[in-house]
Amino acid sequence: MLQGLTTAGIGKLESDLQLIELASRYGFDCVDLDAKSLVDRLGTEEAAALLQASNIQIGAIGLPVEWRGTDEQFLEGLEKLPSAAAAAAALGCTRCCTYILPSTDAPAAHFMAVATKRLRSCANILGAYGIRLGLEFVGPHHLRTQWKHPFIWTVQETLDWIDAIGEPNVGLLYDAYHWYTNEMSVSDIRQLRADQIVHVHINDAKDIPVQDVLDNDRQYPGEGVIDLAGFLRALNDIGYAGPVSQEILTAAQPTASPEELVIRSRTAFDRVFQAAGLIQQ
Amino acid sequence: MLQGLTTAGIGKLESDLQLIELASRYGFDCVDLDAKSLVDRLGTEEAAALLQASNIQIGAIGLPVEWRGTDEQFLEGLEKLPSAAAAAAALGCTRCCTYILPSTDAPAAHFMAVATKRLRSCANILGAYGIRLGLEFVGPHHLRTQWKHPFIWTVQETLDWIDAIGEPNVGLLYDAYHWYTNEMSVSDIRQLRADQIVHVHINDAKDIPVQDVLDNDRQYPGEGVIDLAGFLRALNDIGYAGPVSQEILTAAQPTASPEELVIRSRTAFDRVFQAAGLIQQ
Amino acid sequence: MLQGLTTAGIGKLESDLQLIELASRYGFDCVDLDAKSLVDRLGTEEAAALLQASNIQIGAIGLPVEWRGTDEQFLEGLEKLPSAAAAAAALGCTRCCTYILPSTDAPAAHFMAVATKRLRSCANILGAYGIRLGLEFVGPHHLRTQWKHPFIWTVQETLDWIDAIGEPNVGLLYDAYHWYTNEMSVSDIRQLRADQIVHVHINDAKDIPVQDVLDNDRQYPGEGVIDLAGFLRALNDIGYAGPVSQEILTAAQPTASPEELVIRSRTAFDRVFQAAGLIQQ
Amino acid sequence: MLQGLTTAGIGKLESDLQLIELASRYGFDCVDLDAKSLVDRLGTEEAAALLQASNIQIGAIGLPVEWRGTDEQFLEGLEKLPSAAAAAAALGCTRCCTYILPSTDAPAAHFMAVATKRLRSCANILGAYGIRLGLEFVGPHHLRTQWKHPFIWTVQETLDWIDAIGEPNVGLLYDAYHWYTNEMSVSDIRQLRADQIVHVHINDAKDIPVQDVLDNDRQYPGEGVIDLAGFLRALNDIGYAGPVSQEILTAAQPTASPEELVIRSRTAFDRVFQAAGLIQQ
Repeated sequence: MLQGLTTAGIGKLESDLQLIELASRYGFDCVDLDAKSLVDRLGTEEAAALLQASNIQIGAIGLPVEWRGTDEQFLEGLEKLPSAAAAAAALGCTRCCTYILPSTDAPAAHFMAVATKRLRSCANILGAYGIRLGLEFVGPHHLRTQWKHPFIWTVQETLDWIDAIGEPNVGLLYDAYHWYTNEMSVSDIRQLRADQIVHVHINDAKDIPVQDVLDNDRQYPGEGVIDLAGFLRALNDIGYAGPVSQEILTAAQPTASPEELVIRSRTAFDRVFQAAGLIQQ
Repeated sequence: MLQGLTTAGIGKLESDLQLIELASRYGFDCVDLDAKSLVDRLGTEEAAALLQASNIQIGAIGLPVEWRGTDEQFLEGLEKLPSAAAAAAALGCTRCCTYILPSTDAPAAHFMAVATKRLRSCANILGAYGIRLGLEFVGPHHLRTQWKHPFIWTVQETLDWIDAIGEPNVGLLYDAYHWYTNEMSVSDIRQLRADQIVHVHINDAKDIPVQDVLDNDRQYPGEGVIDLAGFLRALNDIGYAGPVSQEILTAAQPTASPEELVIRSRTAFDRVFQAAGLIQQ
Repeated sequence: MLQGLTTAGIGKLESDLQLIELASRYGFDCVDLDAKSLVDRLGTEEAAALLQASNIQIGAIGLPVEWRGTDEQFLEGLEKLPSAAAAAAALGCTRCCTYILPSTDAPAAHFMAVATKRLRSCANILGAYGIRLGLEFVGPHHLRTQWKHPFIWTVQETLDWIDAIGEPNVGLLYDAYHWYTNEMSVSDIRQLRADQIVHVHINDAKDIPVQDVLDNDRQYPGEGVIDLAGFLRALNDIGYAGPVSQEILTAAQPTASPEELVIRSRTAFDRVFQAAGLIQQ
Repeated sequence: MLQGLTTAGIGKLESDLQLIELASRYGFDCVDLDAKSLVDRLGTEEAAALLQASNIQIGAIGLPVEWRGTDEQFLEGLEKLPSAAAAAAALGCTRCCTYILPSTDAPAAHFMAVATKRLRSCANILGAYGIRLGLEFVGPHHLRTQWKHPFIWTVQETLDWIDAIGEPNVGLLYDAYHWYTNEMSVSDIRQLRADQIVHVHINDAKDIPVQDVLDNDRQYPGEGVIDLAGFLRALNDIGYAGPVSQEILTAAQPTASPEELVIRSRTAFDRVFQAAGLIQQ
């Protein structure tokens, strides 16, 4: 498995270059960032050279398409997708992710139909560039009722949706926080095949009743109550070998410097990977 | 357009053979029935010969797959689908229909995802036999709240679902009763392309507030308040040339004899097709 | 049916604006051009206003994707497709076309597999913008052996390929020249459904043995031996109501002025539409 | 990896029951057989009980659909597919395989289009039962020219075809004989993901020029010149954990008894798995 950073949890960065630099300095394998923006800034060759010199891969890009809104919003995003995918592919990135809010103001069944078609288009385009689409189920209880109608939030629902989308390059973004707030066990992970998982997020939760856990109140790995050792071991055992990227969503930006926060993240990764008995690269 | 009968509204029939015989005697062009059962009874050749001698086509078969229930139910039905489709194709039938209940006890978004995959499988199999799948949106208000969660009931929602299913051989079953209970106009029909419509049902509604109209309280064409002349004219004008089959769902079986009811249906078709200014074949 | 012009057969145009102007002046309904380029030149609003003031629709855009070459070429084109489709959709155009060369230097079966996937991606993107993809089968005998391996050139092969592509928005571009060089009859057209045809080209062939007819030796409608009256009548009878655009490919550019050539085209259309007994709009 | 037997190479069996019995007695993990026929003979429960008592899984069933012939042949087979899939699923089998002849009398491009659609239907049905479809590329040189037109025989061509089919549950049947006759190396295997491989066949080739190797002249594993140790190690290293089934196609049935041939197969498996350094289960 590859140890990775996202921008969530390492403070106010100056740029993606700083993210790459810090990830590299502190022994991470990958970062999640916007490949297109990096290519626009540096050019493809220089961007690729920087990543190679830094020994850093791009774990995943975010899906630059708003598939939850109006047709206009969707098509506006779709127009940007091929160049975003081309930039990612040029930098060797093979993953693109988006998240599924567990409730919606739209009538749920109709929204599911519309979103199925939209994500099929996205997956199809990404597939042309050799990129997989990871769908992140989102577990925190408060979000299940935040909007008018319940949508979906479990792994099984998400797998069924992936079947409905029907493109071969769609899988799960498996986030430890959503695994925990769905009250799932390591045996649930062991029932999956590695190829069903496109990407993994890691983070931790406060020691409060699970139904009170807020989505933007996340802790650094090992600083909370999630069984991250079991989580990582199960993923490793089923053969998952992709990125495990930290994503610490918080209500307020942490005040420490990015470097201090990356060091804290380094410690966090060491702690939970060691607890999992995984030999680090 | 082809004038057709279903078994709904012509009383207690002895068999499909009686349906074919009565439809033929009273100048109908087609009947909706179970082709497989006819083939099982008569053999393919004799069934085809009977239809030809009677100058009757099979308008549509019903989808013999319960896609709304458990996986077991679905797969049990799927197992029967190829032979049902083969029988229909052997008798020249190119349409297979199912209806969409406008509410469901299942979580709506997840059910939509599961049903999308299931109907895609059905459509794919039907397509191999040159058969199209018609989805009937169902409008009566009382059914929208009969089960726990709203599902879909409008034309637009159904078209979006057809897009989500994504097979080229799926379209609408357009029923005058659901058009009426959705409070749609002829201009709504005129916005469709003929190839979006697989099959048409005709029947009439009592003169009561539309929100009180019950699904199983249907009248014979022209005996109620639906603008069937406008309905038929619009379908004809956009180029729809398939079956228009009568479907009179009622709480209790009518007591008159099938022959009396077919004569009443004949009168009803004459009335509304003449009002529509359509020269009858 | 809509009478249309392409740029092939009307000489050396100064710009798309001249094409629109001449088509409008001489009573055509539509032109085939690159919508994106028009939008880039005028802006969407002004382009739409020009078309409306000229009473001209865009019949079809060409597919801006080279799907017959390397992966790099394909992806480069794919990147441009959404904005090309968006421009077309913004101007009310719902058709995009490409042609199929009847032989290829690539191993035929593998090329078919690769091209199937590529055109599915194109169709999927176009579909998101409400645009259909028309595939033009190409009949002239000399092209069937021009490259190493035979590919496909008949209607049935193309329909089977459309099935293999599997997206609901793919159909035929039916060109009179290819109908003729495939030695097909009006009854072949009558066996199609209107919705299987996305676009139509019209032109004529010299009175020489059909196997000697060259692809770039086309005549104006009515100046050759193709039964264009039968061709148009059959298309009209099955309900085809889209564009019929003139495409006169020739080895050398005609020397007359665009206006003279559009007048000649006007005469040609009048001749064959009258021969077909079609009341002109 | 699971060690398996097919009926090819173990002589004239009395029945599937004997195959299961011998596989079990000599320490194999799985057999490839027709699940439907086993269920028809014993009933689902007894068949499942026999397999469990024998500690034998069903590695794969053969695709009971002739997708290379006429439409009639195809549809006749398709009609049997759901019940074949249901029987396999009921016995825990998740793989179904078919092979691709490397040449064909049909025009290659058109046949590829037709076969793409047909195999998509098969894959779709199998997918409903949780079964994957494995496509076996076939390498021997003599078969590449046995019929009029070359079709496909390489891994890359097959992967591109799998993309064209477009269903998520299609992958490779990787046979050591075809790997060898395609003159591929272990590094070719290492470039695959485990989830791209549905099933594996093992067997060996005579020490003659590779272009002279005949498809039905196969040797027992380790008795020929194929680098089966490298083959197995590479498959294991990329994470393939499914069946590796022996398939010894020969011109004439071997004359030894099934038991003698299973013992010979046992020795063969021990030899090559040990050479590969794979700890046997």
